[in-house]
Amino acid sequence: MIKITLKDGSIKEFEPGVSVLDITKGISEGLARNACCGIVDGKVSDLRHIVNNDAELSICTFDSQEGKDAVRHSISHVLAYAVQRLFPTAKLAIGPSITNGFYYDFDVETPFTAEDLVKLEVEMKKIIKENPSIERFELPKEEALKLMESEPYKVELINDLPEGEILSFYKMGDFTDLCAGPHLMSLKPVKAIKLLRSAGAYWRGNEKNKMLSRIYGTAFLKKAELDVHLEAIEEAKKRDHNKLGRELKLFMTDEKIGQGLPLMMPKGAKIIQLLQRWVEDEEEKRGYLLTKTPLMAKSDLYKTSGHWDHYKDGMFVLGDESKGEEVMALRPMTCPFQYTIYNAEQHSYRDLPIRYGETSTLFRNEASGEMHGLTRVRQFTLADGHLIVTPEQLEEEFKGVLELIDYIMSTLGIAEDITYRFSKWDPKNTEKYINNPAAWDHTQSVMKQILDHLKIDYVEADDEAAFYGPKLDFQCRNVHGKEDTLFTVQIDFALAERFDMTYIDKNGEKKRPYIIHRSSIGCYERTLAMLIEKYAGSFPTWLSPVQAKVLPISDKYNDYADSVVKSLKNKGIRVEADYRAEKIGYKIREARLERSPFILVVGEKEAESNTVSVRSRKDGDEGSVALVEFETRILTEIANKEI
Amino acid sequence: MIKITLKDGSIKEFEPGVSVLDITKGISEGLARNACCGIVDGKVSDLRHIVNNDAELSICTFDSQEGKDAVRHSISHVLAYAVQRLFPTAKLAIGPSITNGFYYDFDVETPFTAEDLVKLEVEMKKIIKENPSIERFELPKEEALKLMESEPYKVELINDLPEGEILSFYKMGDFTDLCAGPHLMSLKPVKAIKLLRSAGAYWRGNEKNKMLSRIYGTAFLKKAELDVHLEAIEEAKKRDHNKLGRELKLFMTDEKIGQGLPLMMPKGAKIIQLLQRWVEDEEEKRGYLLTKTPLMAKSDLYKTSGHWDHYKDGMFVLGDESKGEEVMALRPMTCPFQYTIYNAEQHSYRDLPIRYGETSTLFRNEASGEMHGLTRVRQFTLADGHLIVTPEQLEEEFKGVLELIDYIMSTLGIAEDITYRFSKWDPKNTEKYINNPAAWDHTQSVMKQILDHLKIDYVEADDEAAFYGPKLDFQCRNVHGKEDTLFTVQIDFALAERFDMTYIDKNGEKKRPYIIHRSSIGCYERTLAMLIEKYAGSFPTWLSPVQAKVLPISDKYNDYADSVVKSLKNKGIRVEADYRAEKIGYKIREARLERSPFILVVGEKEAESNTVSVRSRKDGDEGSVALVEFETRILTEIANKEI
Repeated sequence: MIKITLKDGSIKEFEPGVSVLDITKGISEGLARNACCGIVDGKVSDLRHIVNNDAELSICTFDSQEGKDAVRHSISHVLAYAVQRLFPTAKLAIGPSITNGFYYDFDVETPFTAEDLVKLEVEMKKIIKENPSIERFELPKEEALKLMESEPYKVELINDLPEGEILSFYKMGDFTDLCAGPHLMSLKPVKAIKLLRSAGAYWRGNEKNKMLSRIYGTAFLKKAELDVHLEAIEEAKKRDHNKLGRELKLFMTDEKIGQGLPLMMPKGAKIIQLLQRWVEDEEEKRGYLLTKTPLMAKSDLYKTSGHWDHYKDGMFVLGDESKGEEVMALRPMTCPFQYTIYNAEQHSYRDLPIRYGETSTLFRNEASGEMHGLTRVRQFTLADGHLIVTPEQLEEEFKGVLELIDYIMSTLGIAEDITYRFSKWDPKNTEKYINNPAAWDHTQSVMKQILDHLKIDYVEADDEAAFYGPKLDFQCRNVHGKEDTLFTVQIDFALAERFDMTYIDKNGEKKRPYIIHRSSIGCYERTLAMLIEKYAGSFPTWLSPVQAKVLPISDKYNDYADSVVKSLKNKGIRVEADYRAEKIGYKIREARLERSPFILVVGEKEAESNTVSVRSRKDGDEGSVALVEFETRILTEIANKEI
Repeated sequence: MIKITLKDGSIKEFEPGVSVLDITKGISEGLARNACCGIVDGKVSDLRHIVNNDAELSICTFDSQEGKDAVRHSISHVLAYAVQRLFPTAKLAIGPSITNGFYYDFDVETPFTAEDLVKLEVEMKKIIKENPSIERFELPKEEALKLMESEPYKVELINDLPEGEILSFYKMGDFTDLCAGPHLMSLKPVKAIKLLRSAGAYWRGNEKNKMLSRIYGTAFLKKAELDVHLEAIEEAKKRDHNKLGRELKLFMTDEKIGQGLPLMMPKGAKIIQLLQRWVEDEEEKRGYLLTKTPLMAKSDLYKTSGHWDHYKDGMFVLGDESKGEEVMALRPMTCPFQYTIYNAEQHSYRDLPIRYGETSTLFRNEASGEMHGLTRVRQFTLADGHLIVTPEQLEEEFKGVLELIDYIMSTLGIAEDITYRFSKWDPKNTEKYINNPAAWDHTQSVMKQILDHLKIDYVEADDEAAFYGPKLDFQCRNVHGKEDTLFTVQIDFALAERFDMTYIDKNGEKKRPYIIHRSSIGCYERTLAMLIEKYAGSFPTWLSPVQAKVLPISDKYNDYADSVVKSLKNKGIRVEADYRAEKIGYKIREARLERSPFILVVGEKEAESNTVSVRSRKDGDEGSVALVEFETRILTEIANKEI
């Protein structure tokens, strides 16, 4: 008999060779009906997976991410099956589950149209109704190649695998796909599917490869769940920074300038300016020293830092060595520049901690296909910084960094949206990391100790570290539910060595400092994107590009409106007036669309009594108040950075 | 007889074929003794120049720049003569006069040492004493090549000249040099020469060419004049931003990062931050809209703007078209980016003027040999901006631009150091300029009219315009007397057309706007350099990185010093304390070297009475004052931006 330890810690005994499904049935028939897949010893597995030894097992229903993934992955196969039926010349690429759905990439002569998607959805529903059997089988590489010989992309994937590998396949009716699984036992429970859109996508995400046709879709067990999800998508679309940010004239892009290079229009530039000054000032209060270092350097610098070996593909390189030209690169990070400043003089333990901060523009040579709005860009500006500390100062300074971040995120109203990820290296991936296992072990354990000591609630992730050390990632979901890293705090064991950074300790001996790489707000473009989506464009008053909009009822009151504008401007309030000969209702509607925190209507009564009729975003029409009273109120709201 | 019109308007008659020297003698024997060269019909000429037709003539003594140049150019030949005597294998390159002196470049096996310079100076004095005759003669190209066959650099220069050219030579004793002149009639009047230093310089300023050995020197007629000049050089060296700026830890450079890429250290970055925020705020008050646009763009954008045709050599280009890569370039100017924002929507005359401002980082691919400190750099940040205006608004807006500049320059205390240059195109230089003579004529006359109307006192300069229009250059001399352009205001007739920028006028018709390109402070790196030299590092208090330095007399008063620091910090004053166990006299001396505007010494008396003992840069030891009184005083000085 083998011992199966369940999630609640209880242990059940089964004959060796039992399937996960049978174990589940052994627990409860009801659970077995709802089960989508299992996790056996930490590995997501089919319900058809056979267990031969003692194991830990948890069963995943649709309520878990793993269960949702199994459902949607199976439905991505249904989509490919339908494509094979309706578009028999289509070649299959890959079709994974993703957050909130799935996609499948196909090589077709003409991209799929909206009508194609409708037809495919009908066909998929037909397939689900047919309830085809789903089987898993394994083949050695040679036979796998033979089976997939008519699918060039599958052949390429198989060829990339090491010799002797055994590959798994899933067969659903007449459709067979190379796939690691897991998949459902049957399609029967899936009552709600939807194809959402099609888009171009490069094979393997590389712009040098062929552009394929990708279809996005999602699947739920119940129609009501799908409906809620589709509504949320519609709402998210309205808040999408890449749509709303353009409508509000915060930013734009231009074909001639290029992808991933957004232009901040005056209103967007104003928000960025406010954020940058605020962060610089808050950092200064906390003893940070501002630097301003160059945006490029000779390759020599990056060879010392390790970027040349571990990060060159992500860098914009200038100059051609083979032509005898000086080779330089736009900087992807600020670290080596601030280290150079540190190294300009010999520091003593009395100087430490030194906290360097910089509003730092950085560059990443992203592939064209990857660019998106303000979140995937080729140039961005980060509140970057490095703390050079003694070993004894490490925890206290790490804590100070987290406190600053908490203050910034709370003030912006997004602290509660953030989760923490402790990103570690992958010892197998020696291309990506500095290969010093002992140092990795030490630094990761120091960092883990600090995180646990500070009671940070984090998840761990392998193979997500920086090349020079482990990271604490600040994760946030965008309006579409996609999780992204806002910014990170890292402990660096490697670069102080590489740059020969030292300090003289109390005994007069040269020592290596620790370095904390950190941001306090992340990159400003991404922060703006997040704020647009969080507030649907209705920014807190202190961040609003226009804080008050003055609307004269008719041109008889333009002079009074003008005096209101002047009075507000003199007090540093950002104000605009709408002097157009339009109806007041129209002007109010437009000012609302522009998300003005305060609309000040002025007519005869207001002009006579030196008042303004206030319409606030929060409380609507509040009636007339003395101008000076309104000014005090808005200035207090701005000074307190009220959300 | 020919008519010679003199500078005072008087006309004298001479036989055709008369020399400038003889004409001068005809005016006054005294003038002839002091004359160094003449200007005949606008062209600087030898005194030995023969006049055959009516002409305008002015005679240049050593008091004029032309006279100084003739003296120093002749002495540069004396230097080359001396080098030929002492280093017979040296090859000659070029040897012009420059501001305050001259140089000569030589190709020698080992660079000249300080001892070599001493020997050469002795040899030069010997040559001057020998009083060699100086003769001018002309040769056709073929014969010139023969004469110079042992001088490869001269051969290269001659080969670059068009066929049929007649070349002039000057012979001084046994030394003959290819030279356009003018030169003195005799070396006798030159009583004071000095070789200053040697340095490496690439042949023709191009880093791909051989590094030559350059010797700098100067010459005066009287020893007393030379002494005054050498003293000024010593004083200038102390103020030199490239020396003092490093000593004060404002900036640094690093071999691994590269030439022309200064790193702003915390104190320098603080000054730049203060200046940038101030300029952004002053522009906002004047109705400027802030933008933040990308630092690179596809070549497409620069092809539209004309930079690709007229400015490509000055740009950093990314990507290799021949490899199928996307070709982009780092931006050399902000114009096309702000125009793209303007073009994002159709504007009407009601929107104009639109004033865009940006704290804009720009790149110039300067040759390595040209880089210097903060003034010749590859990356710099400019207070850039463009005003899009109707023709009727042009003069008023131009005036507003000049008023802002005057406010900025006056506040910085450098308004009186600035002179104006009206830079026009050169119709022969069609490589450099957009070739539209009618538009140039029109825009230059419009600009001239505005300048005259605004009573700007300018000099005119040909072939100094931007490629798209004429400029008003704001010129300033650095501490070494070298004149440089701080920044410019330009009127652009070409780019609105190229970018198809329009506005709808009152009659509903599409019209082309005018564009004013302008800066309000220039590039911040150069402004910092200028401020360092102007104030010898003792910046006005509002710009000082550290505004007050607190010095406890002994560690017994560290706590009180600490409370003083906290109180000042809370009021936003930048303050540091020196808690080291050093003598108070030593600490005061160090604080003075750091150029602290205020030194606050605290001991028993101060701690008891809550006072500080103030030493100000202006008034020295001022005795004890109440802390709160000192705070009010320094805050007022900061708020008023007192110089």
